[in-house]
Amino acid sequence: MDDTIDHLRLIRTESVGPITYRRLMARFKTVQQALAAVPELAAAGGRAGVPKTPSRGEIEKELAALRKRGGHMLFLDQPGYPEFLAQLADPPPALAVLGDVSLLSAPSVGIVGARNASANGMRLSEELASDLAAGGLAVVSGLARGIDAAAHKGAMRSGRTIAVIAGGLDLPYPPEHEKLQSEIAANGAVLAEAPLGTAPLARHFPKRNRIIAGLVLGLVVIEAAPRSGSLLTARLANEAGREIFAVPGSPLDPRSKGANDLIRQGAHLTETAADITGNLPDHPGRAGLARDPLFQHGPAGFAERPAVFEPAFDHADLLRARREIPLLIGADPVSVDEIARRCQLSTAAIAAILLELELGGRVETLPGNRVARSPDP
Amino acid sequence: MDDTIDHLRLIRTESVGPITYRRLMARFKTVQQALAAVPELAAAGGRAGVPKTPSRGEIEKELAALRKRGGHMLFLDQPGYPEFLAQLADPPPALAVLGDVSLLSAPSVGIVGARNASANGMRLSEELASDLAAGGLAVVSGLARGIDAAAHKGAMRSGRTIAVIAGGLDLPYPPEHEKLQSEIAANGAVLAEAPLGTAPLARHFPKRNRIIAGLVLGLVVIEAAPRSGSLLTARLANEAGREIFAVPGSPLDPRSKGANDLIRQGAHLTETAADITGNLPDHPGRAGLARDPLFQHGPAGFAERPAVFEPAFDHADLLRARREIPLLIGADPVSVDEIARRCQLSTAAIAAILLELELGGRVETLPGNRVARSPDP
Repeated sequence: MDDTIDHLRLIRTESVGPITYRRLMARFKTVQQALAAVPELAAAGGRAGVPKTPSRGEIEKELAALRKRGGHMLFLDQPGYPEFLAQLADPPPALAVLGDVSLLSAPSVGIVGARNASANGMRLSEELASDLAAGGLAVVSGLARGIDAAAHKGAMRSGRTIAVIAGGLDLPYPPEHEKLQSEIAANGAVLAEAPLGTAPLARHFPKRNRIIAGLVLGLVVIEAAPRSGSLLTARLANEAGREIFAVPGSPLDPRSKGANDLIRQGAHLTETAADITGNLPDHPGRAGLARDPLFQHGPAGFAERPAVFEPAFDHADLLRARREIPLLIGADPVSVDEIARRCQLSTAAIAAILLELELGGRVETLPGNRVARSPDP
Repeated sequence: MDDTIDHLRLIRTESVGPITYRRLMARFKTVQQALAAVPELAAAGGRAGVPKTPSRGEIEKELAALRKRGGHMLFLDQPGYPEFLAQLADPPPALAVLGDVSLLSAPSVGIVGARNASANGMRLSEELASDLAAGGLAVVSGLARGIDAAAHKGAMRSGRTIAVIAGGLDLPYPPEHEKLQSEIAANGAVLAEAPLGTAPLARHFPKRNRIIAGLVLGLVVIEAAPRSGSLLTARLANEAGREIFAVPGSPLDPRSKGANDLIRQGAHLTETAADITGNLPDHPGRAGLARDPLFQHGPAGFAERPAVFEPAFDHADLLRARREIPLLIGADPVSVDEIARRCQLSTAAIAAILLELELGGRVETLPGNRVARSPDP
């Protein structure tokens, strides 16, 4: 039996993010059992009502609309899902794709940078992307103005490119890049984690950034201000063991600060495509960020997926975890590792409580296996 | 008795460079014995005539002319000679100074770069120099157009600066920097290895560069093309254990290439003076380049200077060295260490033969303890 519909129902359930989805799938033998457990877990997490789950009909409508646009849905742990992206701690459980799905499994390099880039920055982005694509690499970027758009255009000049967007595939952002998105779909692939009809909001962009970081073997930063999204992407890529490249610039241009800082921290100083290809490994440098021992990855399809998580904690542990863990999670993101160090509870107990808190809508999981208290509704 | 005149006669003797001078002073008990030995050594080195040595009267005239301009002569191993410069393998045996001699012993940073610098490069040079000088460091540069001149001007805005020039103190170069040189002499110091009246030729600039490298604790490179004099200075400074700093720039400007390459090789990426001061040691990082075991440095004056070199080789060794070493030295510079590895003779025998060959005018010693065959006269 094809569980696709039920998986997408669980993925699209309110308060179920990528990590919650994986925790549920690790804890329950079937997706149907996981769906059935959601209301009780959410109540234990302190939620007043029941998290909203879409009906089979709603999901069928979403998939039909995607097919009508010529798109496909890729699922984590199913064939075709990008291998390196799956190594993140929080890969998107489902990805909507327009264009060439096979391109997602090609070796790739990301190029990111300022939206308000200089003419020189955009020229460098376009030239590097063109040279990388001519060398057989896919070039991944985020369809934004400035560096991103230049990278897509350069890669299309001599090869193929991948755009990862923050909203749904039917809502290109910025709107003036609608034509560019169509060209990329025809000359590569466009990816979205969000369902069709999702308008891109500020909170979607960090999620988009982690997908770029997860897809690529290396990430190139060109013109990034301190605390910009590009630097966040670089941090996520570095944490996932991907090589970091940065194009230097004059200290007199504030747009150089971020890339220069990355070089100071050990990123490869990058002037030409050879600086990138000469330092690009065949595989991510470390085993990825999947530090959470609850999860295992493999080629297994849905039906064969084993329940790898058997709760291994006593009731007293669970009660203590339920009492203490919420106190450790504030508005500032904290890593799950840090929580484990602080409370000295088993990872199994911590995972169980985080699952409740997430489904209860009290905690949200952020890229990089960090959690934070949800803003009050 | 004051040996100053005879030391300067030996220093100004034809074919006597800094290393030859030190070899002679190490081998003979007094400067008079060294002067007396020059003709015989030169003949052994294959010279037809006798190397020209200035008379006492000529040297007295040089010193009087220097005094008239308000200048001083500093001698290696005498008080006031810059301590870190003395740690080179080939420090200038005598230095003519205009201005504040004590400044030469202050902690200092060099700033070097392109003559055809960009407006931004010169602005950075001036700002960095001003900030470093305001922090109490002397800023050393070469009085050239572009980055050098901007560094001197910036340092004078808030402190003192040192110019090292390639020709004599009475022949500023470029000529339009005559006024700048006077200002530096009044607000710091100007140094020259060459005697008064020496017009700066191409071969003087590498000698000038090694003095900059030897004076400073750290060297900052701003806008340097590949194979430029600034990169040679950086190599000499690095070999002498000085910290190397480089200001990054856009890959689209060829003037950025040299500094970016240095960063790739480990130079400190530099945007502000804090990047320099935060990485500046109190002393050179290694014991300097004085690898030649023939030489020892100390505060001893001329009279007390011990003869540290007693030839320790037999006659057969000497004959073999005289036959083999000239064959190892071609037009391309080769290091004395490399010669020692190739011929497997004692360093004492090698030094004795190099001394003959230098005085014979057949070999010249270059910065960094390298030698090359002299161009045919």
